[in-house]
Amino acid sequence: MFTHTHPELRNDLSLRWSRLQKGIQHAGADALIISSNVTVFYLTGRIFLGYIYMPATGEPWFFVRRPCGLTGERVESITKPEQIVERLAAHGEKLAQTLLIEDDDLTHSEWLRLVAAFPAATVKTGGSSVLRTSRRVKTPYEIRIMKKTGARHADLIRQYPSVFEHGMTDQGWAIELFHLMLKAGHLGHFRIAGNTMEAFMGTILAGDNGGAVSPYDFALGGAGLHPSLPIGQSGVTLKEGMSIMVDIAGNFYGYLTDCTRIFGVGKLDPKAYDAHAVSIAIRNAIMAMAKPGVACADLYALAIQMATEAGLADCFMGDQQKAKFIGHGTGLVINEIPVLGPRSKETLDAGMCIALEPKFVVRGTGAVGVEDTLLVTSNGMENLTPAPDDIITL
Amino acid sequence: MFTHTHPELRNDLSLRWSRLQKGIQHAGADALIISSNVTVFYLTGRIFLGYIYMPATGEPWFFVRRPCGLTGERVESITKPEQIVERLAAHGEKLAQTLLIEDDDLTHSEWLRLVAAFPAATVKTGGSSVLRTSRRVKTPYEIRIMKKTGARHADLIRQYPSVFEHGMTDQGWAIELFHLMLKAGHLGHFRIAGNTMEAFMGTILAGDNGGAVSPYDFALGGAGLHPSLPIGQSGVTLKEGMSIMVDIAGNFYGYLTDCTRIFGVGKLDPKAYDAHAVSIAIRNAIMAMAKPGVACADLYALAIQMATEAGLADCFMGDQQKAKFIGHGTGLVINEIPVLGPRSKETLDAGMCIALEPKFVVRGTGAVGVEDTLLVTSNGMENLTPAPDDIITL
Repeated sequence: MFTHTHPELRNDLSLRWSRLQKGIQHAGADALIISSNVTVFYLTGRIFLGYIYMPATGEPWFFVRRPCGLTGERVESITKPEQIVERLAAHGEKLAQTLLIEDDDLTHSEWLRLVAAFPAATVKTGGSSVLRTSRRVKTPYEIRIMKKTGARHADLIRQYPSVFEHGMTDQGWAIELFHLMLKAGHLGHFRIAGNTMEAFMGTILAGDNGGAVSPYDFALGGAGLHPSLPIGQSGVTLKEGMSIMVDIAGNFYGYLTDCTRIFGVGKLDPKAYDAHAVSIAIRNAIMAMAKPGVACADLYALAIQMATEAGLADCFMGDQQKAKFIGHGTGLVINEIPVLGPRSKETLDAGMCIALEPKFVVRGTGAVGVEDTLLVTSNGMENLTPAPDDIITL
Repeated sequence: MFTHTHPELRNDLSLRWSRLQKGIQHAGADALIISSNVTVFYLTGRIFLGYIYMPATGEPWFFVRRPCGLTGERVESITKPEQIVERLAAHGEKLAQTLLIEDDDLTHSEWLRLVAAFPAATVKTGGSSVLRTSRRVKTPYEIRIMKKTGARHADLIRQYPSVFEHGMTDQGWAIELFHLMLKAGHLGHFRIAGNTMEAFMGTILAGDNGGAVSPYDFALGGAGLHPSLPIGQSGVTLKEGMSIMVDIAGNFYGYLTDCTRIFGVGKLDPKAYDAHAVSIAIRNAIMAMAKPGVACADLYALAIQMATEAGLADCFMGDQQKAKFIGHGTGLVINEIPVLGPRSKETLDAGMCIALEPKFVVRGTGAVGVEDTLLVTSNGMENLTPAPDDIITL
């Protein structure tokens, strides 16, 4: 492991490695090769260009292409992946016969090259799945970071109105919100898995832009400012009677909390307050039901049932186009597993961090609803982003 | 094609399609399937989740999964890629026997699924390469956008000092620069090809952070504020005698111009001004030599020769860790081809947009040098980012 790794982090990394190794064993493989930035950070606490060779048992090897000068135990400097096998052999490491590769994270070309670099191994599919499964339950160190992130995030949300001015556009306010967050230590970067997903920092959806259809698989999308990035703000002036949904992730230490709050310019249509109250009721009902062992699909079904009973099924999770989930894991990327959707086969585990976002679109007013990042504990769920959750009048 | 596409764009898209079709024919394929956001935007002027089926001759088909409601000629709504073949057959379209897929842009899992969706086709490698090659020469419409973007970018660079205050950190100034750019219509998003490359808007490298080693393959990197994103600002306070390299892309319409300028807090070490003058001389010499048909490797060799003659080879393009290029194509992503490196086999063509960045690291002072986005024309190169290029004293 790299020199100068903090002992507390070092201990936690050992836990992550051993969890991952159980997954590798369970998948029937001898080793897993890791090279995506997010997973390299997860397993070492830093980002480097290169490869981690994680055997099913024993200690991992770290093969670094960039930056130069990284040193430590079992750290090897290489220039190309073809050197991994010879280095492992030189150290007397038994080579994997059955190998996992990150099939959902590497491009096909990268995958081909890695496979060719292990000519003696049989490559199995499912490496990314083993990693995602390992990452979905946070370690004590990660939970501490998620809690710190959520607290800073919630504190900033309380400050959102301080940078609002009447007459602004959605993008005008968004720019001031991003500025506020960066000044408070936000790193800016928005990490999301999947090469068709993208966004800049967050979305501020005002009025009917809350129901705009989107190419992206977010809960709600927004039309965006330009066809090259059709997500978020549409450039509309914020006017009396509009609800404004502010959904910006918190990222101060590389881990993302997700929290959405609603602001109203003056008084809104009473339907908006009613639907918002249903969203809060759904969140609270799910928090009351959730504990280790509960099925994610059952939480989704509860939300649908409550939205339907409130007569709001048509505008729940979008109107013209609907999201097929009410929440998702969050952490190093905004879209970790599990997904709280109808076809999920997953159950909750203590240590999962779930962004729960039951949202409604009220035509003529805009989007309403809350999103919070919730930590699953043995006793239920803890809200890591406890910002005031009523609609705030601007 | 989609309804409501502007006629000027529609005409330009036809030119892009025909160039791409020549590439498909040259690769010996019957069709190319496109699904990455950047290329979907390149070929349609919008982003959707789905697939473009581009035959080697004739008109393309557009298969849209999201958003709902998109209509137009040869536009088909689907829910999964397995429907493409049946829809093509239903329309009497001759199915490709030899097919290209975006192997450098799709994950291995996505690639597997697409291949399975075309059971009768032989899949060839090289689809991404055909697309990159097609995209490297901009069309008249794209050149107009690159020119508009460069002009706005250069105008903003003139305003950078207006948001500087003595006593700021690099990140403090960076936040104000990002704020300035967003208020001027910058879309914020920084598109870069390759899943190990990432950054937030741009980098502001002050003092010795200009020479910090980096996991990323940028000309210079910087240490970053946090191990989860080791790129750019390091949090250092801007002090007398430091050079500050500001490298933020321009993005107002989905196309990126790249331009770097240097600022000095008070007077700098004379070595910094000397090295900066060499950078400008290299840029000017390359602009004088460059025209269609000139080899990219020869431009790189000229830069190395000039840096060496100036006695600055050791600190050219980094000191501890060196970039292996002095420039790169730019456009829809910041790292288009061609690369101006020693092993490049490419030659310049009229319509290429090249970000040329001969940069030096002056230990104890910081990074210096200019970066400009240059359009290759039949007569030579035109600077699309003509901001003042001397070191500006803050």
